Amino acid sequence: MTAKPIRVALDAMGGDFAPLNEIQGAIAAAKIVSRYTPLEIIFIGKEKEIRSALAQFDTSELHYSIVNADETVTMDDEPSAVIKRKRNSSLFRGIELHADGYADAFVSAGNTGAVMATATLILGRIKGVNRPTIGTFFPTTQKGRPALILDAGANIESKPRHLYEFAVMGSAYVTQIFGVENPRVGLLNIGEERVKGTEAVVQAYELLENGPLNFIGNIEGRDILHGVADIVVCDGFTGNILLKFAESIMSMLKAKLRAYAGQSFLHKTAIGLAAIPLKAVFKELDYQEYGGIPLLGVNGAVIIGHGKSTPKALQNMILSAVETVRKDVNGTIGRAFVAASSSSEQSKN
Amino acid sequence: MTAKPIRVALDAMGGDFAPLNEIQGAIAAAKIVSRYTPLEIIFIGKEKEIRSALAQFDTSELHYSIVNADETVTMDDEPSAVIKRKRNSSLFRGIELHADGYADAFVSAGNTGAVMATATLILGRIKGVNRPTIGTFFPTTQKGRPALILDAGANIESKPRHLYEFAVMGSAYVTQIFGVENPRVGLLNIGEERVKGTEAVVQAYELLENGPLNFIGNIEGRDILHGVADIVVCDGFTGNILLKFAESIMSMLKAKLRAYAGQSFLHKTAIGLAAIPLKAVFKELDYQEYGGIPLLGVNGAVIIGHGKSTPKALQNMILSAVETVRKDVNGTIGRAFVAASSSSEQSKN
Repeated sequence: MTAKPIRVALDAMGGDFAPLNEIQGAIAAAKIVSRYTPLEIIFIGKEKEIRSALAQFDTSELHYSIVNADETVTMDDEPSAVIKRKRNSSLFRGIELHADGYADAFVSAGNTGAVMATATLILGRIKGVNRPTIGTFFPTTQKGRPALILDAGANIESKPRHLYEFAVMGSAYVTQIFGVENPRVGLLNIGEERVKGTEAVVQAYELLENGPLNFIGNIEGRDILHGVADIVVCDGFTGNILLKFAESIMSMLKAKLRAYAGQSFLHKTAIGLAAIPLKAVFKELDYQEYGGIPLLGVNGAVIIGHGKSTPKALQNMILSAVETVRKDVNGTIGRAFVAASSSSEQSKN
Repeated sequence: MTAKPIRVALDAMGGDFAPLNEIQGAIAAAKIVSRYTPLEIIFIGKEKEIRSALAQFDTSELHYSIVNADETVTMDDEPSAVIKRKRNSSLFRGIELHADGYADAFVSAGNTGAVMATATLILGRIKGVNRPTIGTFFPTTQKGRPALILDAGANIESKPRHLYEFAVMGSAYVTQIFGVENPRVGLLNIGEERVKGTEAVVQAYELLENGPLNFIGNIEGRDILHGVADIVVCDGFTGNILLKFAESIMSMLKAKLRAYAGQSFLHKTAIGLAAIPLKAVFKELDYQEYGGIPLLGVNGAVIIGHGKSTPKALQNMILSAVETVRKDVNGTIGRAFVAASSSSEQSKN
């Protein structure tokens, strides 16, 4: 293959298990991606630490380079402080490399707020976008068709126009990445009737109704897992609480099953027999399977992952970055806003 | 026993399976309650329909009377329309009987909004309460110690003062009903830091911090099921979405397990073996086990249940009504507001 490689800048200091999980994720991703297009990983971070970690693995199939960055952004760092005072961090340097054209994408399992703020500042927003957004995938009963929840915590108090933008960006993303034509957009609410919910949600309903998307109306909390919508639009406060709640369900069920097993030998045996099907089902519900959370609306391909990202999750984040670049998600979002602007302008007036 | 019976007015037309589930729930509740205190059920609704349904069951242990009400409130009726135009409905008549002292409590699996509005109007609010609230119980990993989520949908846009009131009412309820001393109050938010979240939540944090409750600070979506707090305070929009989402998890898991079983005979056998422990765990997570949702803050004992309430759920709603009366939950809430008023007045100024 002589195609130009896709260059992914990887924050090697991002996650809670950095750089080990980052390196393993990169090696696994390279094995998959190199089948169809060349991939180069640019590890950003403390060079010495990265090199000694790399030495523990077989990197023969990995094309990589290292860019040194001495500082590390922690989960407690305020986003604004990173921009002001941690310009030599792996997070800041990685986004800068991407903005300057030395990388086609940036991937981090680090401080979500800091990645978001820095990316928005340095890369800028796509025309038409007031609020870039981070989504998250929820599994549904419809196999292979997860629901994208937008916003998942980036925009706490979302105005009607912001909710509308989330829908436009989410639709473009799902269409490009999953090949879903006219993905169904649902507005998360406390009832189906258009008059239900907060003032912001009622107004967003109107914008969506008058827009060009496949808007299916209000949906309720119970509809998400049943796969009623491909894109679930909500404010970041609700989305974030829902996301974290959902993440805790599996560990809660596991704790309950363990407690049950501990009650008697018979229970223990029954749970032992149940373990294989349960694992299969739990695996399907695992957020890691869906890889990184896309940051939509910035002029760049930025994939943000959970701090606790496993090698598998990081692999999927890199795959997600590659697809975002290959399928020109940003171009599609830009065109969607051009297409949508006439109808949304009408609604605004 | 010669104690005065506790008289529960039961909306016999309320739920989706009325009056059958209501009657079965009443019979089951009577068996339990009559062991320690006499119980009288006042069925409100279409007398003929109730009588013919009652004839199908053994009512020898049930003390009951019937009050005829020809109209029925549907799930689609606007709360205000019920008050204006359906005064001869089982819902309205039942609450009226309670307000006039002919019943000690009112139980309904009918239209939540209509019960709430009618009860607030006719029974009035407890002094100190601006917004009555409906809560819901979530199971936690701490056996026998569910979390009470307040508000679960009655108050869509909650001001800081309302969030504070939910905490006061929830604490009083949990203390009285479950005997939990100094129940832990958590404010549902997107992060632990006090500056996180919406303006309303940040201000509610201050009120709670300066109040007399056992406020443990902000908690996140992932903390609920782990039993970090006994009372989880949130606006009704978030609470309602979370509640409906949580209710859908079991059916989603069941669908996934069924799909897995359908893949092969081996899978089917494994799921068959797993069925008993899974049922035991799912049962523990079932909302029905926690009975009716208490409407807190009105001058009366009003228990509102899910439209799909089973006989078991209705039984638990009646038990919940009896406990609310016996343990003087309203008196406790009233006293809590008197006790809390000095500190909250301070915070307001």
